Amino acid sequence: MGVRRRFAVLGCGRVGVTIVRDLAREAGSFVVAADVHEDAARGAASRGGDRARAVAADLADPEAIRRIASEADVVVGALPSRLGLSALRTVIACGKPYCDISFMAEDPSLLDGEARARGVCAVVDCGVAPGLANMIVGHGTAELEVTDNVTYWVGGLPRVRRPPFEYKAPFAPSDVLEEYVRPARFVEDGRVVVAPALSNPELIEVPGVGTLEAFDTDGLRSLLVNCPARRMREKTLRYPGHAALMRIFREVGLFSEEEITVGDVKVRPRDLTEALLFPHWRLEEGEREFTVLRVVVEGRARGVRRRIVHEMLDETDPATGESSMARTTGFPCAIVTRMLADGSFAEPGVFPPEILGRRSGLLDRVIAELAERGVDVRRSVQEEAE
Amino acid sequence: MGVRRRFAVLGCGRVGVTIVRDLAREAGSFVVAADVHEDAARGAASRGGDRARAVAADLADPEAIRRIASEADVVVGALPSRLGLSALRTVIACGKPYCDISFMAEDPSLLDGEARARGVCAVVDCGVAPGLANMIVGHGTAELEVTDNVTYWVGGLPRVRRPPFEYKAPFAPSDVLEEYVRPARFVEDGRVVVAPALSNPELIEVPGVGTLEAFDTDGLRSLLVNCPARRMREKTLRYPGHAALMRIFREVGLFSEEEITVGDVKVRPRDLTEALLFPHWRLEEGEREFTVLRVVVEGRARGVRRRIVHEMLDETDPATGESSMARTTGFPCAIVTRMLADGSFAEPGVFPPEILGRRSGLLDRVIAELAERGVDVRRSVQEEAE
Repeated sequence: MGVRRRFAVLGCGRVGVTIVRDLAREAGSFVVAADVHEDAARGAASRGGDRARAVAADLADPEAIRRIASEADVVVGALPSRLGLSALRTVIACGKPYCDISFMAEDPSLLDGEARARGVCAVVDCGVAPGLANMIVGHGTAELEVTDNVTYWVGGLPRVRRPPFEYKAPFAPSDVLEEYVRPARFVEDGRVVVAPALSNPELIEVPGVGTLEAFDTDGLRSLLVNCPARRMREKTLRYPGHAALMRIFREVGLFSEEEITVGDVKVRPRDLTEALLFPHWRLEEGEREFTVLRVVVEGRARGVRRRIVHEMLDETDPATGESSMARTTGFPCAIVTRMLADGSFAEPGVFPPEILGRRSGLLDRVIAELAERGVDVRRSVQEEAE
Repeated sequence: MGVRRRFAVLGCGRVGVTIVRDLAREAGSFVVAADVHEDAARGAASRGGDRARAVAADLADPEAIRRIASEADVVVGALPSRLGLSALRTVIACGKPYCDISFMAEDPSLLDGEARARGVCAVVDCGVAPGLANMIVGHGTAELEVTDNVTYWVGGLPRVRRPPFEYKAPFAPSDVLEEYVRPARFVEDGRVVVAPALSNPELIEVPGVGTLEAFDTDGLRSLLVNCPARRMREKTLRYPGHAALMRIFREVGLFSEEEITVGDVKVRPRDLTEALLFPHWRLEEGEREFTVLRVVVEGRARGVRRRIVHEMLDETDPATGESSMARTTGFPCAIVTRMLADGSFAEPGVFPPEILGRRSGLLDRVIAELAERGVDVRRSVQEEAE
């Protein structure tokens, strides 16, 4: 049987590898695994057997992306955040459907008009949170007439706690620091308010894990625009104490990006802190970790109060050593990528996942396909008449 | 009445100012207040009225010290620690009695032979701890046949606790960091053992203050050699939590003096940390602080078990705003300087204060003179037959 679907995966980090493997599972698929590091591309392609091929290419170069995208039916972006916007623009210009998890700092909706004009469907932020969480919020708020509360808690943590940080970064640690620095936007009384990141710590009990600490981070982004609610919050989860320590580091100025003069050189404190801190945060090969996601959507519809809760706890796959962060980020992306390939979602434009979540049956399909891959998302609904 | 005693005070920081003022109180005294910063010298001299004069001089230059010392009867060193040894050497070469509180990193006893050869009496480390604490230990151990335990607790802290550090450095903050880095030497079972600084934290209740945390620091120095004991420890006092934070900073590498490459420059992490941290540790004008010292000496003599406890709690002088650290460091130095001037201690050599403490009546005189200055050292003795 010949190749029916040609995929290209841009970026073969931890998550990219998982996506390559997943897309190559199906007969009739063929995946090009591209990375600036040839070893990384080869490693990813090897997970796809004879349905994948490695390409070494500098993906900061639009021309390289153009070459790869032009031979694919659907393109996947699993690049560092700083390359996200440029890759999105290039793939749109190539006229190819695109699914992205780069978590670019810029607002990808700026390219919505261009995508519409070219008839291209691009889904961005399509991992776990942002990603699955957004689909759940989009689905829940679409079911309600009035949304009173949206809160989700998310975190990826090592099983073994090593003081003082009790943390290992499952993805780019500089993106983690960015979460600790960028002020958090959330919704209270229907209005967007801003607080410093790491604010409002609270302890929560997570079944199968224990006591974690939740604090404000700036992850709502497109949800602030697309899903009106009286109250909306993203809380990031860490072991208790981590946030207090990070607040101290920040307040001392260790995360500052403003150059200071030290002796006879100028240095950005954050550059030095990263150099010292990140070796402590390196998730070692075989180190067990887990990913927690809990999404609560509350509101009213047709005289009934509804509370919809989705919960997920995923762990490192003990057989393959594949991290839960790679699985829970990569699988939603791979699942949506197949939807783009088979035309189940094909509208032109740049879409955050909450828009997909509103489509009838789409969230159910994503949850069902996650379950096939061993990632269980439990859903419970409470209702009471007003 | 003419001048009977000419003093020179090298260094007019917080403590130097207090010493100038104290030495100039007595009729017949005249004090030269010297500092590289003319303003600092003038400020100190102004506290001595018409019995003091300011001299601006670079005290890193032995020739400058020689000029000032040659016109004094007794010289006082209140210099930064890095200038301590060189000043000691120069004053000895000038043949002048010397009392020093610079807390030099080097071992001043290396100059003992030279002081003896020149017939010069020099007392070093003559502040509070090292200083008063050493006199108390020297006095206590001289009274005992066998010393089972010497432990002293010392700390200077702000009255108002400001998170996260709850600390303000009453003296050079780089000397504080050095205390957090240099491994602590102490005595267990009669042998010197070494532990990382900030080890063995324990909570203690300090009357008039509350709960503080005590941890190991490397302040025993000459006591390790001069006062044999089965057990001997210095514990530094901070508000609870400070030490844990400093251990984290140290373990991350923020106190490291080894250059690392950041971007295209090389930088010592400690230099950057100092630049960011020390503004948070600056004791502001008028900010109230206090100094705690508690010294326990236990042992046996003539069939009796003795436990001798000295306790001191001194606070910022509300009238003058003079800090307790300046008072408790400067007064022992000024008191001993007068002893050098009136010949009550005149033996040639370089002496740490525990040697002075062994002299009959000397500690009592120091304690009595501290009391005159409003610094109360309470002594209690428990005895029981063996």
